[in-house]
Amino acid sequence: MGEQSAIQDPADRFADDPAFAVHVDGKLAVRSTRPITSIEDLALTYTPGVGRVSSAIAAEPELARRFTWAPRVVAVVSDGSAVLGLGDIGPVASLPVMEGKVCLFTEFSGLNAVPIVLGTHDVDAIVETVAAIAPSFGGINLEDISAPRCFEIEARLRERLDIPVMHDDQHGTAIVVLAALRNAVRLTGRELGSLRVVIAGAGAAGVACTRILLDAGVRDVVVADSRGLLHAGREDLTPVKHDLVAQTNPEGRAGTMIGALEGADVYLGLSGGSVPESAIASMAQGAFVFSLANPIPEVDPEVAARHAAVVATGRSDLPNQINNVLAFPGVFRGAIDAGATEITEGMKLAASEAIAAVVGEDLRPDHIVPSPMDRRVEPAVADAVADAARREGVTR
Amino acid sequence: MGEQSAIQDPADRFADDPAFAVHVDGKLAVRSTRPITSIEDLALTYTPGVGRVSSAIAAEPELARRFTWAPRVVAVVSDGSAVLGLGDIGPVASLPVMEGKVCLFTEFSGLNAVPIVLGTHDVDAIVETVAAIAPSFGGINLEDISAPRCFEIEARLRERLDIPVMHDDQHGTAIVVLAALRNAVRLTGRELGSLRVVIAGAGAAGVACTRILLDAGVRDVVVADSRGLLHAGREDLTPVKHDLVAQTNPEGRAGTMIGALEGADVYLGLSGGSVPESAIASMAQGAFVFSLANPIPEVDPEVAARHAAVVATGRSDLPNQINNVLAFPGVFRGAIDAGATEITEGMKLAASEAIAAVVGEDLRPDHIVPSPMDRRVEPAVADAVADAARREGVTR
Repeated sequence: MGEQSAIQDPADRFADDPAFAVHVDGKLAVRSTRPITSIEDLALTYTPGVGRVSSAIAAEPELARRFTWAPRVVAVVSDGSAVLGLGDIGPVASLPVMEGKVCLFTEFSGLNAVPIVLGTHDVDAIVETVAAIAPSFGGINLEDISAPRCFEIEARLRERLDIPVMHDDQHGTAIVVLAALRNAVRLTGRELGSLRVVIAGAGAAGVACTRILLDAGVRDVVVADSRGLLHAGREDLTPVKHDLVAQTNPEGRAGTMIGALEGADVYLGLSGGSVPESAIASMAQGAFVFSLANPIPEVDPEVAARHAAVVATGRSDLPNQINNVLAFPGVFRGAIDAGATEITEGMKLAASEAIAAVVGEDLRPDHIVPSPMDRRVEPAVADAVADAARREGVTR
Repeated sequence: MGEQSAIQDPADRFADDPAFAVHVDGKLAVRSTRPITSIEDLALTYTPGVGRVSSAIAAEPELARRFTWAPRVVAVVSDGSAVLGLGDIGPVASLPVMEGKVCLFTEFSGLNAVPIVLGTHDVDAIVETVAAIAPSFGGINLEDISAPRCFEIEARLRERLDIPVMHDDQHGTAIVVLAALRNAVRLTGRELGSLRVVIAGAGAAGVACTRILLDAGVRDVVVADSRGLLHAGREDLTPVKHDLVAQTNPEGRAGTMIGALEGADVYLGLSGGSVPESAIASMAQGAFVFSLANPIPEVDPEVAARHAAVVATGRSDLPNQINNVLAFPGVFRGAIDAGATEITEGMKLAASEAIAAVVGEDLRPDHIVPSPMDRRVEPAVADAVADAARREGVTR
């Protein structure tokens, strides 16, 4: 058996990298919360006792919320088509990432989660599969599914299911970016509505960040994809990008992302690649540079610091890490605690405000978001999200 | 919120039944096996460290067996269409049973398992759904899916997937029934090939029991459904029953199950309903009565004991309990340990022999199978199944 000999191989290729050591046999375990040490335990946990519980739920389905685990389990669903910066590596290779996401769910939210990786990239098949297994779960976290399929998959599942569904690469990122931007604005005494924002990247994160910034009151956003700024004159736009154009680029600018940076207040990098120092230098005084490509930011953080008032990245070894773990555990926890049937724009905005508020009086240019390990974040987000769900009346 | 008020309801309708108390919030938890208490932990368990592991698997997929949890996770899959004796109660009401099954997997085999309940009864949809999620798992335990759909679903998934797939209502039951029959024969100094067996019930368990008994050397089996004995002259047979006829009822008998009991050596009740004492009295001397309907056996065990040499039931409060938990944990453990790509007839026969052998010298009329709590059973079954898989060359 290949894996046995690999484990025992004294010249292990992976022995030097501690990341592999923490992945041996995977990172998750399922356990019974009830002891089964006697025939009597068996007769309650399983037959015949379980039959009475199942009968009661069959007669009164709402009892499932009390007597099954499903309402507090999130499925972390991926087809492995857009994994980290690795691209389309497929479901099996994406599993360590999905297991890691489940680890974060269980550690930070107290919810249960299960990685579900799918052997298909077909939109219809993904929607049908997730809808079919949905009675097993209390929420669906879509993960690392490539654009533009991710938009349709999320939209159709939100329409079809009455449990929270969220594509985290879109909305988790957007929630944390908005939290960071709120605090950058507070730090520098400005207003969201006065900012000129350039978003580099029109994929999952770019689209969701654009939408949440507009919802939060930002008025001037231009978005660029690899072919330049999105504007009404372009004839190569997907339906999603076409929709973005209707809400962005108020001056109808064409040209390059680099050109748009001149005089801009915010650069939000979600695209990879690199931005020359001259472009950053051309931004307005006191600019914010959020350069989130990982592990290599689009703008070198030291270079950015020469010109910008606030710099944020996706890296854990630098200040101001934009990390989705600040958002998704609390968002799902709050939605599930409230019995929400969906995750609304208002719930996302509430999550963003809660994250920003945790920073409080410790606001500094190198501390506009909490540390990913800050345990105050998840309960604050959960409370804010649950409150928003109740306020909006989307609870069951 | 309904469930909150229910939990706090002082006049709780379910307070008197301890089965409900063990089901509050369900019976399962997922936990990270790696601590995440620092940024450094996060950087190994999740990004950026996890990216190196995913990259390695993308380049060399076999590494997934070592660095993900999937190979040691069994999906317990049901559509809730044939749950215990309750019938088609649907996926949500079936969840307590599936959670219980997962509890047994984790407690008895050390494997992980996850309940997956499906919001569809359509055969094609079930096959496509399970195939789509299969990269997440190392085995598929189909559970409580009604006949005849269960036969086609299992056959198509076995054909399509290269991981073990087993419908436990069929094969788990069959394995334990055969183990019990082996020991009943040993106890009474007979041979499997000399027995006349009457099987009441041609559903999932009846079909699988028939097949495993024939594979083990029983030569004279008649099977009855609710319309009487299966024979070539009947024109109302499903394809599966038609196949059974070709291998059973060597004398081509028509008529009722009760009629067939006259002079028979074995009654195997898998149908529910009730059998009159006169029919049991008409069986051959030293008969075996395995009356597995639960909670009410087809033949009252006290009545059966007046006429039979050995009596077995499905009940935990009576001797000789035919309980699938004797089989499925070891069957999946052995198959997965050996890297088996399927569960063959030979592996099932090996499991059955291993269960029977655990009884050893303690063989008595009221002890032809081990107790469900006997911890020697699972490792014995796992070893026997893994050996059989290697012998048959179905390992990867």
